[in-house]
Amino acid sequence: MNADIEKLFSFIVEIDKMKTVYRQTYILNEDRQETDAEHSWHMAIMVPLLSKYSNEPIDEGHTIKLCLAHDLVEIYAGDTYCYDAKAGEDKEEREKASAEKLFSMLDEPLRTEIHSLWLEFEAGETPEAKFAAAMDRVQPLLLNLERNGRSWIRNGIHFSQVENRISKIKDGSEVLHTIIHERITEAREKGWLKD
Amino acid sequence: MNADIEKLFSFIVEIDKMKTVYRQTYILNEDRQETDAEHSWHMAIMVPLLSKYSNEPIDEGHTIKLCLAHDLVEIYAGDTYCYDAKAGEDKEEREKASAEKLFSMLDEPLRTEIHSLWLEFEAGETPEAKFAAAMDRVQPLLLNLERNGRSWIRNGIHFSQVENRISKIKDGSEVLHTIIHERITEAREKGWLKD
Repeated sequence: MNADIEKLFSFIVEIDKMKTVYRQTYILNEDRQETDAEHSWHMAIMVPLLSKYSNEPIDEGHTIKLCLAHDLVEIYAGDTYCYDAKAGEDKEEREKASAEKLFSMLDEPLRTEIHSLWLEFEAGETPEAKFAAAMDRVQPLLLNLERNGRSWIRNGIHFSQVENRISKIKDGSEVLHTIIHERITEAREKGWLKD
Repeated sequence: MNADIEKLFSFIVEIDKMKTVYRQTYILNEDRQETDAEHSWHMAIMVPLLSKYSNEPIDEGHTIKLCLAHDLVEIYAGDTYCYDAKAGEDKEEREKASAEKLFSMLDEPLRTEIHSLWLEFEAGETPEAKFAAAMDRVQPLLLNLERNGRSWIRNGIHFSQVENRISKIKDGSEVLHTIIHERITEAREKGWLKD
């Protein structure tokens, strides 16, 4: 048993790297970008707060697990900015290789269990995966709006790019999509997003 | 409904402050201390990895929620270093006031739901709260061991203080406590902890 636990401890130590994968989004109370670990925490805790707005009933605990695990593959693949079309080209390949490498540190049945969380999130077919994907889009958007569109302005992002990006919120929550769409329309009016 | 959602968005934005509460523990791949948001994410994802070692059967989803919410009160109360006896004196009072302030941003039933997560964690009586408390101790300990006892050395911590601190792991998992106790005994031998 000790060897099994030592192996799990090695995995736990390895995923500490989620604290050094920096995203494009700025946190609100300090001049730095947020880490994958922080983003995942934030998304996860949003689930019980917003679950009543899910289109379909969801298992909150399972949705939270999807949020916690969805970015683990970025430990080796790095964060791909959602508006970087070029980096997006080989994203799938890079992330798949990263998943193989990372999850092979675990023994069965955990290897399949954790790997499956990532696969389910990526496939986006279950109600839980759809709602987790909505959280993945709402979370950075709220921060970016609070920061007067800082990361959009910095990267010269167009309204249509964000509109396209948030369309996935609709699959998880029509209600949240409507409100977020209003917010980005205001952002365009303020000049935070290019026409 | 829009007003309800705007209120929830305000709470979500407010708890971004968890990304600027810094703990004593150092992360592994950069020269900085970890944030409460990162610590909470790490603890939460440890639950499905280690739950089979819980003394009692636990609801993983609920345990994860306790992990995600357990440090929210530090947004206003700040992080109290677990080996700082002086700061520990008024910790309860500061955190209680912080909880009142923070959770009153939410409407019922969420106000009670989220507040209750914190109260349950603090009371430490349910199997889930006991296991979450074990994660709260195992997580920084693993990082500190990887960092050759850096935050212990920096703060002049004694073996008996850590031994006392980790005794709570036993309530959640006898097995994990035994292994962690072996690890800190080795740490003392290496001189990372004072006698």
